[in-house]
Amino acid sequence: MSDPQILTVDLGARSYDIQVGHGLLEANPAFQAVAKGRSVAIVSDSNVDPLYGHQVELLLAPVAHQVVRIVVPAGESSKCWEQLDAIHDRMLEAHLDRKSLVVALGGGVVGDLAGFAAASFQRGIDFVQVPTSLLAQVDSSVGGKTGINHRRGKNMVGAFHQPRLVVADTGVLRTLPPRELAAGLAEVIKHGAIADRTYLEQVAADMPALLACDPDALARAILVSMRIKAGVVAADEREAGVRAHLNFGHTFGHAVEVGAGYGKWLHGEAVAAGMVMAADLSVRLGRMPATDMAVLVQAIEAAGLPVKAPQWPVDDYLRYMSIDKKADRGTPVFVVLDGLGKAATTRADEALVREVIATHLG
Amino acid sequence: MSDPQILTVDLGARSYDIQVGHGLLEANPAFQAVAKGRSVAIVSDSNVDPLYGHQVELLLAPVAHQVVRIVVPAGESSKCWEQLDAIHDRMLEAHLDRKSLVVALGGGVVGDLAGFAAASFQRGIDFVQVPTSLLAQVDSSVGGKTGINHRRGKNMVGAFHQPRLVVADTGVLRTLPPRELAAGLAEVIKHGAIADRTYLEQVAADMPALLACDPDALARAILVSMRIKAGVVAADEREAGVRAHLNFGHTFGHAVEVGAGYGKWLHGEAVAAGMVMAADLSVRLGRMPATDMAVLVQAIEAAGLPVKAPQWPVDDYLRYMSIDKKADRGTPVFVVLDGLGKAATTRADEALVREVIATHLG
Repeated sequence: MSDPQILTVDLGARSYDIQVGHGLLEANPAFQAVAKGRSVAIVSDSNVDPLYGHQVELLLAPVAHQVVRIVVPAGESSKCWEQLDAIHDRMLEAHLDRKSLVVALGGGVVGDLAGFAAASFQRGIDFVQVPTSLLAQVDSSVGGKTGINHRRGKNMVGAFHQPRLVVADTGVLRTLPPRELAAGLAEVIKHGAIADRTYLEQVAADMPALLACDPDALARAILVSMRIKAGVVAADEREAGVRAHLNFGHTFGHAVEVGAGYGKWLHGEAVAAGMVMAADLSVRLGRMPATDMAVLVQAIEAAGLPVKAPQWPVDDYLRYMSIDKKADRGTPVFVVLDGLGKAATTRADEALVREVIATHLG
Repeated sequence: MSDPQILTVDLGARSYDIQVGHGLLEANPAFQAVAKGRSVAIVSDSNVDPLYGHQVELLLAPVAHQVVRIVVPAGESSKCWEQLDAIHDRMLEAHLDRKSLVVALGGGVVGDLAGFAAASFQRGIDFVQVPTSLLAQVDSSVGGKTGINHRRGKNMVGAFHQPRLVVADTGVLRTLPPRELAAGLAEVIKHGAIADRTYLEQVAADMPALLACDPDALARAILVSMRIKAGVVAADEREAGVRAHLNFGHTFGHAVEVGAGYGKWLHGEAVAAGMVMAADLSVRLGRMPATDMAVLVQAIEAAGLPVKAPQWPVDDYLRYMSIDKKADRGTPVFVVLDGLGKAATTRADEALVREVIATHLG
């Protein structure tokens, strides 16, 4: 490994480090220090475990008390009670206890599922995030959100549970399918849109290099994105205020995910189409010039991401949004932009929301 | 209502009040203030809901946005995923959200289940404990432990989640079955044994009044017991240190519960027999005079609680204890007494533990 760059997420007693670098699964003293002497469950999925499970086991086995590998089927449908229960079953079978450690090795699904397995095992044990998708590296591995889906809604069952360490190895992204790489770029674009206009413009300029998996371009984007997200999380751990800004594009986007059935649209794809709607809402509310919206739409298109949502009745969209978890007593709250690089939350008239949705179907 | 006595559990930003008094379900401005303007789910069981569900609904409905009542079957077997999921389903159906409130109305099972339903709903929402058994009032409603059982062990899935308020109405204890009243007294005796010898002696002297449900004697015992428990919890919220003292009698006792099948022995009954073993271990380790053990055994017998555990092979007891959640990498840790009123934790030789167990079967 080369020495990783370190970001520290400042949450008092629950502060933790994020490592970004190459080769972090081959040699990693800080990761080994967390695992030292403990029983470790490496939770991964059927795509990622064959690629990196053995490598992480080799890294930790020399220092750990024992290492067990637990593999769930790849895909969003594993974010369910049955898989959570199966993980707990294996952990209990191997006599893991309150001092044991969970390692979440995979994308956002594994991070959410394994994170909640750690949060709810014997009332909460430590875990380390090893995100292997771009989306997970820039988004879901930072912030402590864990959980599973309920048939009535996504992420309805879960906990805030901060990792002890996040290990973001840029090298693993070379095995990522191109569609998932693009979906991860949606969150990178989002971070620029809500917090840093210059960064958004840089990402747009770097887009060919990012899509070609250029390691330097990726490392640069991951670091800035994680710094933006970590900063917001540190300021608002439990999403009472500014953390809601990270949901830019998500209220509309979740409607797309719910309506299509989880997993049909990748999360980043739905967020991309949702950001276009949220940007248009910002323009129609007089909070952002249309030229800013054009810059955002251009970046989304350059990443090969969708700017249109499915052609469903607008009533369906409203219905899907009313059970969205960001709803406040049934009325959706929208994250809007006061120009690129500055986010805010607002309610909006239903008529206006209907217009915005209708404009971006196709 | 008469003005309740208030104990404050000091946990910084998560501090909360415990009310002890009569008529607290008839009029209660502090409880109403917590529910004001919110969607409220009153979670109860098939024994308690018919007795007090309507009363609590009448108390909260005038101030709440809406009130839904959710009833699970009475008994330990409701501490399972299926009931947790059914509660979440009803909450989502009624459009409860992150700002909603769960009220746990019942004994320890309802408190653990409804508390975990609140802890895991949309990553954690507020809840109020309304304990209706003596055991729940003096023990499980204080401390923030929530959870459900796993087929491999009790309370293996759960979270620490502190209530916003605990409403302990001594009036509801008049509807409690005598066997459950006695089981609650086991925890009262335990609090005296680990923290306050004078209190233990007072409880022993008051035993006839307590068993006759004398309100003054009950209120006195509940207040002191909650104060002892709240003090320990405040000093050690996540059971890293002194909070383990509250597990006096529980390592042996859980083996009885596990071996008999959950619900055959009441928790307090198992703890009573477990305290006799733990006291004997303390004597054999030279940490407590045998005369102190006699005082404890006498109090347990006076409450009509068992001092003998079931006649199973000692190997079975050791096996049941090895998956106990208080185990530290497979080796059980025991809470012992350095004389009545002072607890400590220790490991012990297996041979000695075997002797202790064999002595108290019958």
